[in-house]
Formats: sequence, C-alpha cells, structure tokens
Amino acid sequence: MKTVHSPHHVLQNAEAEFIRGRKVPSFEMPRRAELVLERVNAVSLGPVIEPKSFGTDPILKVHDRDFVTFLATAWETWSTENGPIDAFPNAWPPPRSSRVRTNRPGAELGRYCIDLSSPIMAGTWTAATAGADTALTAMEIAAGADKCAFALCRPPGHHAGRDYFGGYCFLNNAAIAAQAWLDRGLDKVAVLDVDYHHGNGTQDIFHDRADVLTVSIHADPQHEYPYYSGYADETGEGEGAGFNLNIPLAWGSDYATYAPALAEALARIAGFGAEALVVSLGVDTFGGDPISRFRLVNADFTTMGRTIASLGIPTLFVMEGGYAVEDIGVNAVNVLTGFEAAR
Amino acid sequence: MKTVHSPHHVLQNAEAEFIRGRKVPSFEMPRRAELVLERVNAVSLGPVIEPKSFGTDPILKVHDRDFVTFLATAWETWSTENGPIDAFPNAWPPPRSSRVRTNRPGAELGRYCIDLSSPIMAGTWTAATAGADTALTAMEIAAGADKCAFALCRPPGHHAGRDYFGGYCFLNNAAIAAQAWLDRGLDKVAVLDVDYHHGNGTQDIFHDRADVLTVSIHADPQHEYPYYSGYADETGEGEGAGFNLNIPLAWGSDYATYAPALAEALARIAGFGAEALVVSLGVDTFGGDPISRFRLVNADFTTMGRTIASLGIPTLFVMEGGYAVEDIGVNAVNVLTGFEAAR
Ligand SMILES: [Zn+2]
Ligand SMILES: [Zn+2]
Repeated sequence: MKTVHSPHHVLQNAEAEFIRGRKVPSFEMPRRAELVLERVNAVSLGPVIEPKSFGTDPILKVHDRDFVTFLATAWETWSTENGPIDAFPNAWPPPRSSRVRTNRPGAELGRYCIDLSSPIMAGTWTAATAGADTALTAMEIAAGADKCAFALCRPPGHHAGRDYFGGYCFLNNAAIAAQAWLDRGLDKVAVLDVDYHHGNGTQDIFHDRADVLTVSIHADPQHEYPYYSGYADETGEGEGAGFNLNIPLAWGSDYATYAPALAEALARIAGFGAEALVVSLGVDTFGGDPISRFRLVNADFTTMGRTIASLGIPTLFVMEGGYAVEDIGVNAVNVLTGFEAAR
Repeated sequence: MKTVHSPHHVLQNAEAEFIRGRKVPSFEMPRRAELVLERVNAVSLGPVIEPKSFGTDPILKVHDRDFVTFLATAWETWSTENGPIDAFPNAWPPPRSSRVRTNRPGAELGRYCIDLSSPIMAGTWTAATAGADTALTAMEIAAGADKCAFALCRPPGHHAGRDYFGGYCFLNNAAIAAQAWLDRGLDKVAVLDVDYHHGNGTQDIFHDRADVLTVSIHADPQHEYPYYSGYADETGEGEGAGFNLNIPLAWGSDYATYAPALAEALARIAGFGAEALVVSLGVDTFGGDPISRFRLVNADFTTMGRTIASLGIPTLFVMEGGYAVEDIGVNAVNVLTGFEAAR
C-alpha cells in the first residue's frame, strides 16, 4: 500500500494545551507522525509519496468559506495584534449571539474554536492544507488501480466541522477526501471512524446528506471528548436522516466488545452500497493510550484491518488520533497490513 | 442612601484568569468591593446593611433551572472529580451540538461558561447568591420610602445570561432585582447599564419582553468584550422588539461623547414610562481603568449620577465592573452622591 505524507506537518508543533485550567504539554505532536512513518518503512508497506497541491477548492466543498478564510489568515491577524504567541481563545459566543464580525483576532478565534487543545501558530495553515493535500493525493491513488492508500495526515481532522476547529484538528482531511471522491463520479461514499473519539466534525459536515454515510465507533461522549455529540440517537437530519450511525462504547471496552460494533458498522456500510470507503484511522483505542480508556492490544489492530478489507471496496485510510507514541506506528500499520493481507 | 453589602463576596476570590493563553492575576477581586465600601463609609453615604436571604425563587424567574442547578452543584461535582482546583473549562459546545447531559463536570462547565475569566470555586455559589440577595434587599429599600438604594454586589452580574455565566458574573443581580420589582406590582421597569462592557446577560434575559426596557452604553463590541453582542441593531425580538437599546461608543470616548449617549438613554427610559430604574453601575469607563479604553474622569461620575436623578423615579444602583482599584470607590460613590444631591 502506498503512503502519502507531507513534511510540512511539523509546522503544527504546539508547545502546550490547557486541561482544567492547567497548561500541559500537547499530546498531539510531530513525533506521532514520524513514528508511523518509521513503521511504514520498517515493514516495507510500500512507497512513501509527497502530496500534490489541490488548493482550497476541495476544502471549500466541505468547510464554510468564512471559516476557511479565518483559518488561512488567523495567524497573521493574531500575531499582528498579540505578537508571536500561540493563539488560544479566552472567550467564545454565548447562546443567541450576534454573527457580526469583530475586529479582534481573539474574538474571531473564539467564534471558530471549540476547545483549548489546538492553538493556531505560524505554520498551522500550511500544515493543515498539507494534511488535506495528503488525503486528496491518497484518495486519487485509492480511486485508481491500487484500490487502497494510506494518508498519513497530521494534524488530524475528524473533529473539524463545517465552521469550527478543535480537538487538534483544523481541516477535516477525511471529509475533504470523501467529498472529492464523490466529485470524481461516485454516488455513495462511506466514512468509517475508528478513532477512540467521536468524529463529530465529519458527522457535522455530512449531517444532512444521503450520499455520504458516516459511521463512528467511539467512547461514550457522556464520559469522553467531544462530549456534545456522538450519541446513538444522532442519525442525521433532513435528506441525511438515517445516514449517520454512532456506536458509543463504554470505558474499558476491549476487542470482544469492539468486534461486534465493527461488524455492525461494516454491515451498515455494505447495506448502504458504498462504492468507496474512507477510514478515519485513530489508534487511540489502544490500551496504552495516555488519554483514552479502551483496551485494544496490538494484534487487535491487525484484526481490525482484516475485517475492514471484507467490504471489498476501494479504501482510503486517513490518520487521525493515537497518543501512545511508542505504539502508534505499530498499531496504525497493523491495520494497514491486516487490510492488505486479507483483500 | 442605604448600601446593602454581604461579607460573603470574599468567597469568590479567583487567583487567576486566562487571556490569550496566558494565566494572569484576576482583575476581579474582593478588594474592589472593599474599596467601594470604604468610600461609602468615608463620605457617610448612609447605613450599610447586610442582605436578607430570598432563596432561589427570584433567581429562577430570570435564569434557567438547569443552569441554576448546575451553578449550585458545580463545585461539588467538579472537585469530586478533579480535586480542589478552580474550575475552568477547556471545551465547549460547537454549533449544532447535542443537549444530552454528560457525566463530566468539565463538559457541563463548558456548556454554561462563556470565557476563561470566571472560575468556579468552593464559595462561588454562596458568593453569587449573596450578590443576588444584596440586589433584592436593596430593591426592597428602593421600592419603599427611601426611593433609592445601593446594592454593593460582588461578584458582578450583567454578563450572566439566562443559561450562561462568564465575564466575572454568575447570577445577573440587576436582572433578578428588576424582575422582583415587577413582581411587586410594577408594570414597567428599566435597566440602564453604564458599565464599560455591554450588559449582554441582561439583554439576553429580557430580550423578548416588553415590560423591561434594557439600555446599555458601552464600548463597541467589535473591539471589546463581550464581542458577540451589544450592537446597535439588536433591538429586541418578539414582544420585546423595540425594548432593547444598545449605544456602542468608540475607544477613547470621554464625557463629551458619553453625555449625549446618556441623554439618549434617559430619554428612551422616560418615553418608555419606566416606574423604576435599575442601574448596572460599572465604573470601568474611568480613564485609569486597566482593562478599558474610555476616558471618564472622577467628576464625570458625579455628573452621571446627577443626570440619572433627573428621571425622578425610584432607582436601584447595582455594582458591576470597575478595575482601577484605587479609584473604584471614588467613582462609584460619586455617582451615588451626585444622584442624591440632585434628586
Ligand atoms: Zn482520538
Ligand atoms: Zn465592565
């Protein structure tokens, strides 16, 4: 399987995030992608390719223009006012707020940002667009003779919604790729999110659409980020009614619990008639993950990949979360090698 | 003029707030109220009385029950999970979020909190309810033979909305008092907010009602907190259409600019036919205020009080912001003595 990866990811390199009013070292770091890349090479998964540039058009198909404009210019406006310090918001819109645009970079930041994990810095836009290009380049490979590809994206993307960013995510790489795949002429694409955390951004982007089925298996949001979505009763709205499936699982879930959830997810995707699959590949379901509470072991990821291959459709893997840095490479690549062995 | 004040205010004593990702000492501190109280005594404004207890019923007339329940229990649930550290959120609901209640105190905190200025601590609920009781006790005095009173509230209240808190505010003392005044049999009460910052919470609470006219003179929210409301085109909705007046002024405004705004505000209140007035008395319009950019001088506050007296209706002054601690007592009491001299 070919891997697409951009060296620009290192430009998103947050020193810190805030948890409960305390500044802590960021769990999301460049080393994550480096370890996956090292493992890709160690097992000779296949060639590693740099992405092409697709510009902002495919991004604007899933994200609001105002939001994209904000992201593209945020560092310049912020640093002009505040100097070269990482951009964190300290206020955000209450319910029933005005949509009037302010002249304060911090206030606009609060409008589009959903948490304190994802500072905007000098290289954020470059890194985020490199991530989108990575997903798009890999999608083209998966749509071709290869029938599969690995987009080693960083920063991740699945928490980024139509008009918001957070959870370490700025642009929704998986959603951008799924949309672009449709735009090549497919009628139905599915996104399967196996990250420990609900893919709230992806759900949000496709919430009212019937041409993209979104399925997410994740920790119960009553206990776990992103908290405010990911419940089983969120099944889509309007034309999208019935085209979103959330499978929240309890803290402590191991693969004995995970396997039936994955089977349910794949059955739904098959029933939908998906012509292509985008997998939001987070491996923070691993038992050793520092911020998560599932109990998957290394070999479970191989099984997961093998099981996903049973769908028998072109498949794009897009890297999302996973924070146990020593194991992230093994676990992510185990999914890919499991997939390759079974297809 | 009688002053009502509770010693419980000291229980809200935040060590810090966050601005642009940096932890800074809280501008809102117990010393603020102490300096006002010292000045009240220094000029022999009148007796200082402790508040009676009114319970939660008058609070629930302007705030949502779920929000009040959250505030009343937030410290217990937060500290049980996180230990005795001040409660700051690190995530909040994106657009189009689920209203499902989570089991995580930090997530519920994010649901109700609008910024990083207002940590919940062990004494927050006691201090906040003491503030509401202070406003209610003073309202009863103003509604009686005295025809005026000063509620030396702390923490302040005007940024607290129906179901949110922030901007150093937890319960909207002025709104609670205005509602209780109506509930004593009045038909029309006006709230005049002269704090430097828009009284977004008060506007929110009475936004769809015609029996409370809300008027706020403040720094243009395009440049200044609370950013997401306070614009001139917000005039109320539904039955409240036409019963909200925002007068945003530019940075650098002095009393030459302020006086016509105040005249416009008072003319609207008189035209409304208000039977009673609640003044949200912030004195952060002072030129020396560390977080503000108007240029009022000490004597302007005396003029402001004298001008407000021209309405000739029972008037309750409720303390809001003001952070130039050396001058906050002088400026707040100047409004009161100016008022007393003119009525
Ligand atoms: Zn995750
Ligand atoms: Zn203020």
